Amino acid sequence: MLNSTLTKELHRIIPRENVLTEIEERYAYSFDASNITSKNIADAVVFVESVEDVQAVVKFANMHSIPVICRGAGTNTVGACVPTAGGIVINFSKMNRILELNAENMSIRVEAGATVDSVQQAAAKFGLFYPPDPSNLKVSTIGGSIAQNSAGARCFKYGATKNYVLDMLVVTAEGQLMHTGSNTVKNAVGYNLGSLFIGSEGTLGIVVEATLKLIPKPEDTQVIMAYFDSIEQAVVCVNQIIEYKMFPSTIDFMDKNAINTVEQFYPTGLQCDKEAALLIEIDGEKSQLSVLREKICSILRINKASSVQYSTNHEEAENIWVARRSSMSACAKLKPNVTTDDIIVPRNNLVKLVNGVHSICERHNLTACLVGHVGDGSIHPQIPIDFSDEKEYRAYKIAKSEMYQLAINLGGTISGEHGIGLEKKHYLSRVVDKSAIDYMRQIKKIFDPNNILNPYKIF
Amino acid sequence: MLNSTLTKELHRIIPRENVLTEIEERYAYSFDASNITSKNIADAVVFVESVEDVQAVVKFANMHSIPVICRGAGTNTVGACVPTAGGIVINFSKMNRILELNAENMSIRVEAGATVDSVQQAAAKFGLFYPPDPSNLKVSTIGGSIAQNSAGARCFKYGATKNYVLDMLVVTAEGQLMHTGSNTVKNAVGYNLGSLFIGSEGTLGIVVEATLKLIPKPEDTQVIMAYFDSIEQAVVCVNQIIEYKMFPSTIDFMDKNAINTVEQFYPTGLQCDKEAALLIEIDGEKSQLSVLREKICSILRINKASSVQYSTNHEEAENIWVARRSSMSACAKLKPNVTTDDIIVPRNNLVKLVNGVHSICERHNLTACLVGHVGDGSIHPQIPIDFSDEKEYRAYKIAKSEMYQLAINLGGTISGEHGIGLEKKHYLSRVVDKSAIDYMRQIKKIFDPNNILNPYKIF
Repeated sequence: MLNSTLTKELHRIIPRENVLTEIEERYAYSFDASNITSKNIADAVVFVESVEDVQAVVKFANMHSIPVICRGAGTNTVGACVPTAGGIVINFSKMNRILELNAENMSIRVEAGATVDSVQQAAAKFGLFYPPDPSNLKVSTIGGSIAQNSAGARCFKYGATKNYVLDMLVVTAEGQLMHTGSNTVKNAVGYNLGSLFIGSEGTLGIVVEATLKLIPKPEDTQVIMAYFDSIEQAVVCVNQIIEYKMFPSTIDFMDKNAINTVEQFYPTGLQCDKEAALLIEIDGEKSQLSVLREKICSILRINKASSVQYSTNHEEAENIWVARRSSMSACAKLKPNVTTDDIIVPRNNLVKLVNGVHSICERHNLTACLVGHVGDGSIHPQIPIDFSDEKEYRAYKIAKSEMYQLAINLGGTISGEHGIGLEKKHYLSRVVDKSAIDYMRQIKKIFDPNNILNPYKIF
Repeated sequence: MLNSTLTKELHRIIPRENVLTEIEERYAYSFDASNITSKNIADAVVFVESVEDVQAVVKFANMHSIPVICRGAGTNTVGACVPTAGGIVINFSKMNRILELNAENMSIRVEAGATVDSVQQAAAKFGLFYPPDPSNLKVSTIGGSIAQNSAGARCFKYGATKNYVLDMLVVTAEGQLMHTGSNTVKNAVGYNLGSLFIGSEGTLGIVVEATLKLIPKPEDTQVIMAYFDSIEQAVVCVNQIIEYKMFPSTIDFMDKNAINTVEQFYPTGLQCDKEAALLIEIDGEKSQLSVLREKICSILRINKASSVQYSTNHEEAENIWVARRSSMSACAKLKPNVTTDDIIVPRNNLVKLVNGVHSICERHNLTACLVGHVGDGSIHPQIPIDFSDEKEYRAYKIAKSEMYQLAINLGGTISGEHGIGLEKKHYLSRVVDKSAIDYMRQIKKIFDPNNILNPYKIF
């Protein structure tokens, strides 16, 4: 906790109702969707309402060398907003406004606390579309999306958050304001500081506003679901769909464990005897969707998919997605805790990755439910676990390390979209050259000489 | 020129036939497609044949604090590879191999000197596609594309070079090797050094190899060309096409001056009495293209476009593009020199930009031929000029400055895709915050403490 002098000073710059200092309050904002508990908790939680509020807090923190940890909805899964060294948690939930939507230029300017969902809703009113779709988009914020370079299922066709950020207004560690880009769709004026900030997990500066690129909203979407007797068959389909130049918006995957766990807790009639399922979303012009759908369905059928179903309206499409998105919360019902991970390989090694993860988990008496954006080669192993069971926890830690090494051995890496945070920092040197990490550390020092911005994350 | 001791040392590390030291040779490699002449010329030109060659030259240069300027085809238009402080020009034309094409993963690994065209050709053999299309793609290299983050007409639909670079092998200023990414389509492991390098014009490190993302090649393309009696009508069409959710691969533009200049020197029957022309390329499945084409053509006709033509085969499509791509060389025939520029605004200010550029040029007795990727809000004014005419040159300098300010006043910026180089470095502070430039300078110092990598460019 801040001492009484500092608390008084904080109250002078931020209205008292926006500063939480009770231990229960500080505790509540010291976690995120990872399972990381930190020795320290937040010293204070500040709800900012304006850019000036953020500047004031950062100047105060910088003067007193107090860590500053920004928090959107706290949905990240790697401990990126856990206040591991204490400090001030800046909560952006009151800075959630859509500031400007320019339909002609297809851009939207929002505060960092605006949810992904609110951006998508605002865009939709003008027939426009913000594609990135992290699982928790109803609550996940744009600030958090930028901090973690969030992706999601539609990343397969549309790319991740970094593909949609035109400009950011950043509060630097000194509390100064800085723009990182322009309001144009292209920009080639000096080093790309914007891209450097995206995915930097709040360690280089604090994004307070962002101008995002929108695209025309596809007229219609359909979701196809198909089951397979082997993972190999499913992956063959993925490859063929891509090879035959179809371009679905998503190609997602559930393995047998994921199917069964979802069906156990949220029964919707999933076929529990199958080894794998693919969820394929297509989008585009209404008139053309049925042609594309039939082409994809015939690839699925030729490759012995069973029960190839597709949605005929928005509600049916949503129902299929609910099954896929429920896997984590279903897993959470199996044991007191659940972990989700994020490994990625070149697509030709997907079968080896899926099978490898299962055999690692079996060896350690763990059960992994695998879901993932297989069109990208990305897998999210979700492992139900009891953290209070020391033996199981130890086994999990070893399994995790082995899964990362497996992904690396298959030419992949330890995070495709979740980031590093605290969760994976000790593995970073396995996938990033030492010299690159050294440069990253030096870059951190430039932007944050006093190490106040989300310290001890990433490296 | 290097003194004899240093030349001897250079000969020890690079075979004699790959080192040019005659004044004519050094002079020949001291220019690019900009009009910039430097007081200094290259001290030596080295043709590298391997990563080890590059490392050896860089270590040698770093030890003796000699500038190193990398050169692909020298097609950049901003003086980015002019050896303004002398030094060693590293020529990548002998490092032009396609190292690996992985069709299943849709990726290609190439040496930095590989041309964009050779990458596109190699990809096409597998039904794959590398979309970035800088005008000089027949000779432009991947290394140069990365240095300048090259875009091109198709950027409208497909994005610029940065959207296709998965990984780079970089030689650092100390001559060490470093990877910046991974072979996966997504990657969230620490700061995005790759994006920092892309567009950094060879000032942070030397890209020697790149792994590029490919996408499925669209089955077919068609090009539509339409003429207009006013620029406003043309821009209204651009906006409507986008608004109605068509997504052409390019929406390009020629104004009356460009049309007339091209027709004067490369007659193909362009309509010289019209104020503007749009060139719209659509791509996708053969069966769907005619539907899309008719939709676009009806938007064009409703907005009073005259002579709406479209290509019915690849040759006709190429012929239309040749007209657009010939504008610069046609302009070059009007006067001893020609300048091309690159300004960009949010699309709703396009008409103001086009009209504004014309009135600036008229005021200074200059004639601008305007072409551009108007779907992106991007315009390339091409101005025929006689640099030896001091008065005209002075007028041009003022006009240029006014054009940049106009773009800025319209919410845009001074480069969308060409970069800064030497040409625009004195204007950088008009569009980039001072604090951002300060950070860029500090980043430069981290990566290149002895200031040997393409010094004095950008800022």
